[in-house]
Amino acid sequence: MPETAPPSASPVYRPTARTVPTRSKERAVYDRDLVHAILDEAYICHLGFVREGAPVVLPTLYGRVGERLYVHGSTGSRPLRMAGGPRGAGEQAGAGSDGTEAPGLAVCLTVTHVDGLVLARSAFHHSINYRSVVVHGIARQVTDAEERRVALDAIVEHVVPGRSYDSRPANDRELAATAVIRLDLDEVSAKVRAGGPIDEPEDVGLPHWAGVVPLARGYDAPVPADDLDPTVVLPDYLSVL
Amino acid sequence: MPETAPPSASPVYRPTARTVPTRSKERAVYDRDLVHAILDEAYICHLGFVREGAPVVLPTLYGRVGERLYVHGSTGSRPLRMAGGPRGAGEQAGAGSDGTEAPGLAVCLTVTHVDGLVLARSAFHHSINYRSVVVHGIARQVTDAEERRVALDAIVEHVVPGRSYDSRPANDRELAATAVIRLDLDEVSAKVRAGGPIDEPEDVGLPHWAGVVPLARGYDAPVPADDLDPTVVLPDYLSVL
Repeated sequence: MPETAPPSASPVYRPTARTVPTRSKERAVYDRDLVHAILDEAYICHLGFVREGAPVVLPTLYGRVGERLYVHGSTGSRPLRMAGGPRGAGEQAGAGSDGTEAPGLAVCLTVTHVDGLVLARSAFHHSINYRSVVVHGIARQVTDAEERRVALDAIVEHVVPGRSYDSRPANDRELAATAVIRLDLDEVSAKVRAGGPIDEPEDVGLPHWAGVVPLARGYDAPVPADDLDPTVVLPDYLSVL
Repeated sequence: MPETAPPSASPVYRPTARTVPTRSKERAVYDRDLVHAILDEAYICHLGFVREGAPVVLPTLYGRVGERLYVHGSTGSRPLRMAGGPRGAGEQAGAGSDGTEAPGLAVCLTVTHVDGLVLARSAFHHSINYRSVVVHGIARQVTDAEERRVALDAIVEHVVPGRSYDSRPANDRELAATAVIRLDLDEVSAKVRAGGPIDEPEDVGLPHWAGVVPLARGYDAPVPADDLDPTVVLPDYLSVL
């Protein structure tokens, strides 16, 4: 079963050679609560892996359960197959019912929020206010039936909190067609830029507007499915978006 | 000098083994105009590369000039160093003033818009409406002074159109501290999901709301820099955001 970090866990992730940036070191943070908040607020991540020596970066949904991230997909999708599947499901044997550990897939999972456009007097100091999380690790396919159910619920809850309780759960056929991979939050860093532009002192008097244009996430009115029974009303968990 | 595709160029990118997805093939598109529109609307990309055998995915600003994408960064940043720099600037020799071709860095540059949350009656058919572009290729450092200036302007224009004409251009010191890499739009695909949920016929009568919650990009009021001269007014190109 997935579990959260034990209460004794450090409030920060331990920096490693890969999670200490060469640039803007002062923007790197390892605080668990901040990392969780950044991860929970985004809809998608960008999942990177190596295929035939070259990088591949794909956008995908994900869910978080404590210190574990889950990504799902078709059992036929490339990265999920590469992470090792149940015996016979792909070209690479992985964790089977005999408990053999899957070899796993080295991944980098990145989540980014763009919070604002930073306009400085100089072109050079233009920037973006952002919050990002980068997770390095080995993704492995989840074969435990109960953990798979928890993971799939978390992915639906990640999109719309409350929704996993108001939809038909996956049936056996759907579960058999779905692969779930897990990435533990272990080698993790966040990076945050906030605040106004930082201009050179000699540029402050230039006649160019300087400041930040904040971006806001908004929603338009929900669009019912064409075939929605008109007696089904909009649920409360959508009216708060 | 950067150039756009010649008028005789095909209106579509040629699919390759890497740009034909194994899943949801019907969502893959190769139309140049659509690819350009997706690229131009986003603020950041996620740039993937391989470091010591493992994938790395970092968010970064970019700009487009015709069929070329540009990413910039400090001359000290890892991916920009790995793409080959001017002689003596990094651990890897690259294109120098003698015209030697830099070895380049294999990258995957991905841009994604999340357009809506797709709520189906079944958990399994929940999805996201999105538009994404994935570019594979070899990024190489740009050493030509004029191409570097055009690229840096394009990156500023990408954030706020019109802004490169209303800010102090980079001076020699700033240019010397900035590396620019180029990735040609050659091996490119877009993927688009739009429209409502697709439920199993037997689920349509279930009492769960189904439809799409569209996401909207919004802006809050611009926040002037603390030290902004109060006589400098908000420029027109910001009032239209």
